[in-house]
Amino acid sequence: MKLLIINCGSSSVKYQLIDSETEKALAKGSVSRIGMAGAVLNHKPHDRPEVQVSGEILDHIVAIQYVVSILMSENHGVIKDKSEIAAVGHRVVHGGETFTAPVLVTPDLMQELRKLIELAPLHNPHNIRGINAAMETLPDVPQVAMFDTAFHHKMPPHAYIYGIPYVLYKRYGIRRYGFHGMSHRFVSDRAAAILKRPIEELKIVTCHLGSGASMAAVKGGVSVDTSMGFTPLEGLMMSTRSGDIDPAIILHIMAREELNLHEANTLLNKHSGLAGLSGVSSDMRDIESAAEEGNNNARLAIDVHCYRIRKYIAAYAAAMGGLDAVVFTAGIGENSPTVRARCCEDMEWMGIRIDEAANSDCIAIERNISASDSRVQVLVVPTNEELVIARETARIVESISEEHPEPAGT
Amino acid sequence: MKLLIINCGSSSVKYQLIDSETEKALAKGSVSRIGMAGAVLNHKPHDRPEVQVSGEILDHIVAIQYVVSILMSENHGVIKDKSEIAAVGHRVVHGGETFTAPVLVTPDLMQELRKLIELAPLHNPHNIRGINAAMETLPDVPQVAMFDTAFHHKMPPHAYIYGIPYVLYKRYGIRRYGFHGMSHRFVSDRAAAILKRPIEELKIVTCHLGSGASMAAVKGGVSVDTSMGFTPLEGLMMSTRSGDIDPAIILHIMAREELNLHEANTLLNKHSGLAGLSGVSSDMRDIESAAEEGNNNARLAIDVHCYRIRKYIAAYAAAMGGLDAVVFTAGIGENSPTVRARCCEDMEWMGIRIDEAANSDCIAIERNISASDSRVQVLVVPTNEELVIARETARIVESISEEHPEPAGT
Repeated sequence: MKLLIINCGSSSVKYQLIDSETEKALAKGSVSRIGMAGAVLNHKPHDRPEVQVSGEILDHIVAIQYVVSILMSENHGVIKDKSEIAAVGHRVVHGGETFTAPVLVTPDLMQELRKLIELAPLHNPHNIRGINAAMETLPDVPQVAMFDTAFHHKMPPHAYIYGIPYVLYKRYGIRRYGFHGMSHRFVSDRAAAILKRPIEELKIVTCHLGSGASMAAVKGGVSVDTSMGFTPLEGLMMSTRSGDIDPAIILHIMAREELNLHEANTLLNKHSGLAGLSGVSSDMRDIESAAEEGNNNARLAIDVHCYRIRKYIAAYAAAMGGLDAVVFTAGIGENSPTVRARCCEDMEWMGIRIDEAANSDCIAIERNISASDSRVQVLVVPTNEELVIARETARIVESISEEHPEPAGT
Repeated sequence: MKLLIINCGSSSVKYQLIDSETEKALAKGSVSRIGMAGAVLNHKPHDRPEVQVSGEILDHIVAIQYVVSILMSENHGVIKDKSEIAAVGHRVVHGGETFTAPVLVTPDLMQELRKLIELAPLHNPHNIRGINAAMETLPDVPQVAMFDTAFHHKMPPHAYIYGIPYVLYKRYGIRRYGFHGMSHRFVSDRAAAILKRPIEELKIVTCHLGSGASMAAVKGGVSVDTSMGFTPLEGLMMSTRSGDIDPAIILHIMAREELNLHEANTLLNKHSGLAGLSGVSSDMRDIESAAEEGNNNARLAIDVHCYRIRKYIAAYAAAMGGLDAVVFTAGIGENSPTVRARCCEDMEWMGIRIDEAANSDCIAIERNISASDSRVQVLVVPTNEELVIARETARIVESISEEHPEPAGT
């Protein structure tokens, strides 16, 4: 069946139309600058060149109408009629403690989702908007929601509880949730397949290094710890997010710079991380170039980023009582041999050694880059979060049609 | 020579009179509740029972006058005249980037110290008050200031720089400084002595687990990373401090509970950590008792605390590219076999195994508690921060008298 996979941001919609039999994307693209001047749809059918369409795209409903139209268009389309879309799968950032697995969208579910807005005010509203827009545009098509947090729901309390009054966990649900669940799950499953070992007996650290970045300790297929926390701000340094800092720093900066809560949030989420530290760019490619040209702050940003990843790799080995494999994925993890090499530097003490040539040549492909004598296997695995959503969406839609088979003759 | 070592808090003065030849404390004690009703001096001469003196102790000057008086008193004293005090050594929390070694107190120094108040508004003012009080009470005695941050001053930039705009480091000095320097230094030096190996070739993780708690990665005698950061709030969970949390949590709580900066600071520094999570007590002994009696939150608090220590041990091995020894010290580290055992649980993968019997019997004594086949040595070392200050104070006072020998005949 053909599944439309949707990922909504505040002013963007990313989509893929995936054929669940072949597991290939028939088309993929994105709408950006929704509600702003210069809104644009970029669309790439699998067998033809990318096209760009501009238009007045005032909200997510119009955006998804554009997407469905171009999927059916004569020149750029990949389907003839929207009835070919068997289901829509949505990525939702925060499932709280309620949603530990993908679910079929129902009116009750929407009400539960709205309750989670206060837990993730920066993310869930856009996801809800996307679901509403897809229901409006494709009213007869089943919709499935899948949560970034769900893969981490079996984390033990000692990994998810913070050192703050317990009442704040009970009252507001303040705990570690973790994000990037689809990616950590996908690449840890792939790692087991590549290593030809059952995932149940593996201890894997997955490093999702993109503009958002997080790591997970995946023991026997279960995420037992992860670096993002109550929100996606915690953990690794990211393109514009600070990651871990002394909590007192925020209060100190707020006092010194007279910032309110919103401004402090913006500082830590939008102006920090690799961009804030390097002063060069939020893009690791630019930072690597600047570092090669001798920019000290760019070098420092890479040093700090990779040093912290090394510490997390070791910490997560401690979380699991050992380590079989480290997996690099996402934009930086798949495409930067420099970062991967730095993250594995001086890690022989714990059995990690990469093959420098294998690492250097490995750009956006699946490969084992460990040295032949490395006890721990180091893998590069391109992530595919949309495919995880597509698989789960297909599974749920199939289970519905088994429960409610269409009457004969219709 | 006899040295008075002083450690001033907001309403307390702790002191020891140390004989620098024998390195023994002739007397030790503390003044508490300075400026409050019920102010009291507890004093223990090395050879007689502890005594308690109540009085109206309105400020730090009066407190230090009380201390000097009782040191000279007929029944409880250990010196005859205050001229026997050769020098005073002060513990100062924050030395910023200026003070990387102990220094003789001069008017210029006092001015520099005052500049550091904005970096450590919760700590340095009391230390300055203490120095002023001692100068007033013992005007002819040289005073030396030693800094909690100094031992960490060789930390590399990738360990001390945060993922926030670099300009905030330049403008406000926001970086990791680290604290408990005297303790990390003392116990890592002792570890090398116990292991009969030069510290230059050792990789040691020191765990100072008291009501304040921090860890350090000590490579070749140099602290290359430490868990406390810009302030003593970061890192491990402590008796009432949160330690590491998602920075977004603070802003979330401030918004939900309508807290101002001061209240948020108080919440994270005074009502969090082991006390806030367990709901039982800020004292690990009480929490251990409650856990044994089946209190789930007490169990959880111990679980979280020890789990995080395990992760830091491994992370700091990564920081050093290996590990030779782990040292436990301070109140909990010296006295809780339970916590030590939990911190070493499931760490065989990195060569850590303790001898359960040796650990159980070890209360407040120096001992190697590793199993005979443990690759990494696990040590318990009672800390002695005052002795470190005394040694440095003696060294500085001796170097002055070498530079400026008293003229013959005076």
